[in-house]
Amino acid sequence: MPSYRLVTPQKCGLVGTTKVLFALAGVEYELVKLSAEEMQKEKGRMPFGQLPILEFDGKTIAQSRAVARYVAKEYGLYGKDNYDQARADMIVDQIYDVVERVKVWAKEQDPDKKEQIRKDIAENTVNIIICLFVCLQAGFADATFLSISQRWKLINPNCLDGYPKLTALNSRLLSLPKVAEYLKA
Amino acid sequence: MPSYRLVTPQKCGLVGTTKVLFALAGVEYELVKLSAEEMQKEKGRMPFGQLPILEFDGKTIAQSRAVARYVAKEYGLYGKDNYDQARADMIVDQIYDVVERVKVWAKEQDPDKKEQIRKDIAENTVNIIICLFVCLQAGFADATFLSISQRWKLINPNCLDGYPKLTALNSRLLSLPKVAEYLKA
Repeated sequence: MPSYRLVTPQKCGLVGTTKVLFALAGVEYELVKLSAEEMQKEKGRMPFGQLPILEFDGKTIAQSRAVARYVAKEYGLYGKDNYDQARADMIVDQIYDVVERVKVWAKEQDPDKKEQIRKDIAENTVNIIICLFVCLQAGFADATFLSISQRWKLINPNCLDGYPKLTALNSRLLSLPKVAEYLKA
Repeated sequence: MPSYRLVTPQKCGLVGTTKVLFALAGVEYELVKLSAEEMQKEKGRMPFGQLPILEFDGKTIAQSRAVARYVAKEYGLYGKDNYDQARADMIVDQIYDVVERVKVWAKEQDPDKKEQIRKDIAENTVNIIICLFVCLQAGFADATFLSISQRWKLINPNCLDGYPKLTALNSRLLSLPKVAEYLKA
């Protein structure tokens, strides 16, 4: 087993999926949190001068989704063939599209436009449900959903109300001993 | 060989990478452009109610990057192992980060802020160069770079000036007969 170093800034919302995947795979890793000064000093080791990065065996991967996909693939949590993997990818990309829309919603001041965006998100989220349940294992797409929904729940604990299937998926993932263990850590 | 249908709206800037990859692989596909009315009628076939989608053998993939990655992987244009593929992924994600920053730059009205964003893009672009040249074949990352840089050149034909390595990569890709053929089509 390689010795993994997941290097992040002090506060980093981007590595939740990778942490869930490591937990599901039962793989140990070192979490290294750099201060702003340390980041400046170590910039040369970062392919794009940015964090997070994953280091192992003298290799480096940057960009949080690329890191998560690498870990998912390495430990059989991505999908059994190219088509299953593409279905996982499309769900993950759709979740991140929703993340972007939620940011736009949060910034919008006009109440009518805000409600229009909320409605659009709700409809697209429902469409995500249909596909999420194509995944038969707690894999890349599920881990992405869990890490994002945990962040949303910090802002609004009721954000999954009205989505019984997403609530069920969330509960099922949280009930996995390895995930529960990770969240307690 | 499956019979591929790449279904897009009338105008679609999202499928350039997939088109380049199909060209590199020498794979035929049907390009189906739907009108707004046809899109509404066929929404049920789209996993997220959106285009583009790729259809083949009764299967459907949505989300343009997931489609491109599927095609790259299917035809050996993605990378020889998980690490090479992760390096391709991180370059592709970084290119799309630059795309987002270019959008912010285009909207910014304040000249000082605009220049600050331009400087930031320039520095990050230089960082992309270093990694792009890790790719040893005209694969997923190269195809993404080519499709995006062709769009940027429509807005500013000189956008690659000052980046000799990116200019060289662009010229090398454009000189590939299969790519030249695709661009003429």
